[in-house]
Amino acid sequence: MSTSIEIICIGTELLIGKTLNTNALWLAKRITSLGLNIRRITTVHDEISEISQTIQETLHRKPVFIITCGGLGPTFDDKTLEGIARALGRQTEINKDALKMIEEKYERYLKEGIIEKTELTPPRIKMAKLPEGAKPLFNPVGTAPGVIIKQADTTIIALPGVPAEMMAIFEDSVVPLLKAAAGDKIFFETSLDVREVMESDIAPLIDRVMHDNPYIYVKSHPSHTGEKVPRLELHLSTTAENSNTAKNRVSRALIQLSELIKQKGGKIKGLKAKPIS
Amino acid sequence: MSTSIEIICIGTELLIGKTLNTNALWLAKRITSLGLNIRRITTVHDEISEISQTIQETLHRKPVFIITCGGLGPTFDDKTLEGIARALGRQTEINKDALKMIEEKYERYLKEGIIEKTELTPPRIKMAKLPEGAKPLFNPVGTAPGVIIKQADTTIIALPGVPAEMMAIFEDSVVPLLKAAAGDKIFFETSLDVREVMESDIAPLIDRVMHDNPYIYVKSHPSHTGEKVPRLELHLSTTAENSNTAKNRVSRALIQLSELIKQKGGKIKGLKAKPIS
Repeated sequence: MSTSIEIICIGTELLIGKTLNTNALWLAKRITSLGLNIRRITTVHDEISEISQTIQETLHRKPVFIITCGGLGPTFDDKTLEGIARALGRQTEINKDALKMIEEKYERYLKEGIIEKTELTPPRIKMAKLPEGAKPLFNPVGTAPGVIIKQADTTIIALPGVPAEMMAIFEDSVVPLLKAAAGDKIFFETSLDVREVMESDIAPLIDRVMHDNPYIYVKSHPSHTGEKVPRLELHLSTTAENSNTAKNRVSRALIQLSELIKQKGGKIKGLKAKPIS
Repeated sequence: MSTSIEIICIGTELLIGKTLNTNALWLAKRITSLGLNIRRITTVHDEISEISQTIQETLHRKPVFIITCGGLGPTFDDKTLEGIARALGRQTEINKDALKMIEEKYERYLKEGIIEKTELTPPRIKMAKLPEGAKPLFNPVGTAPGVIIKQADTTIIALPGVPAEMMAIFEDSVVPLLKAAAGDKIFFETSLDVREVMESDIAPLIDRVMHDNPYIYVKSHPSHTGEKVPRLELHLSTTAENSNTAKNRVSRALIQLSELIKQKGGKIKGLKAKPIS
């Protein structure tokens, strides 16, 4: 497996079905487009023991990066940093740089008339309590900084759960690190819209195309449109050193697969190639 | 922790950011509404070793149910049953009841003119290869049956990834089992829409309300509306033996929280109580 990443989403709202996990989708898409491989996404409750246990289990699989999402704010249920600290056997301590970032935020909120006092109350100071050895990542949108901390060969990055804050810290502070780790790899994908063949009849064709095209991953997604005619999306993807190699590989597999499907009586209705980001 | 459930979502499309995990949301909401607690949701690739390792790790936490979603179809990348079998140290074998269900499906497809031959090809037979000791669950919408298998005190239920099929098998075959396990518990939730107070100023109020209302869980969700005025959703929830108890508990906490917020200068703009399902 190439440079691998695990995502840990922290939030009871995700486990009671209150919130759709769009953060996981966004991170997965963005990280994959950088040529990196997400091995697992785990969603856990806002509980220190759960967070800590999950971090420990994840470290055991030795990913290059662990990215957590959620639980960095000022309220009692924001427990991510305590969970990480416990997993690493470290204490949390007030980080001066983080405290300065937070102080400056509240000074701005005062100027903007959002608050009346900039006083650093315990909930506000809480956002600057990082595990020993961690560094804050500037939050251009909200208050709580992101956090980065190394443990052996793994870099743990903690991002907030508010989507706009998560995305902003990711783009500013995380993308450069991931690009450096990925090297010049890129991800390329395309989809075929196939009708009038059952998935069970397509199965051996996919086997053959994957055998003949070792770097290509093909996956079939049956759609239930309510119509009687079977309809499948066939998704082809690859990760390569440059976009030409990626496109050539996918094209070759696509031509072979299309031919085989037509021989089987299937109709190809559409081709959706996505631009390389 | 009460009767606990873990969900395992199997599908590379979820890890490359191709597909939003709406199945996890649907399952989480439906299971929570039955009064049960989802402890963790794990998403893994279509790889036997990953599936098997995740099942083993999950069994170690002794949930009452493990529900997997995805990977039951006819193609090479449908590896859930092999993964479960390996985790349990069992073989897969053709299950007669499952094979009969699948045979009857293809006979229907032939009558409906969708296919020309009902021949049980290897990809079709594959859907009937269950771990030893497992039983099929009838799929009213698609072809691949769901699967149920006991291991010590845990019941493992494997559902397909196509949403309509997953939901249909869940409602028909899984809900009765979960209801029996939950007893008469129900889940109740409500939300307050609060403006003009920072989350850091609300934090101590939530602490107090949770301290005074031990069965109530309160979580704050800051919204970024682009406006300068801070806006928060405060979500209150509880699980109780009957709906009166649940509603009374939530109401009491809601009144206390509203009073405290008003004293702090906050404005309450809305209250969203959800019906008990």
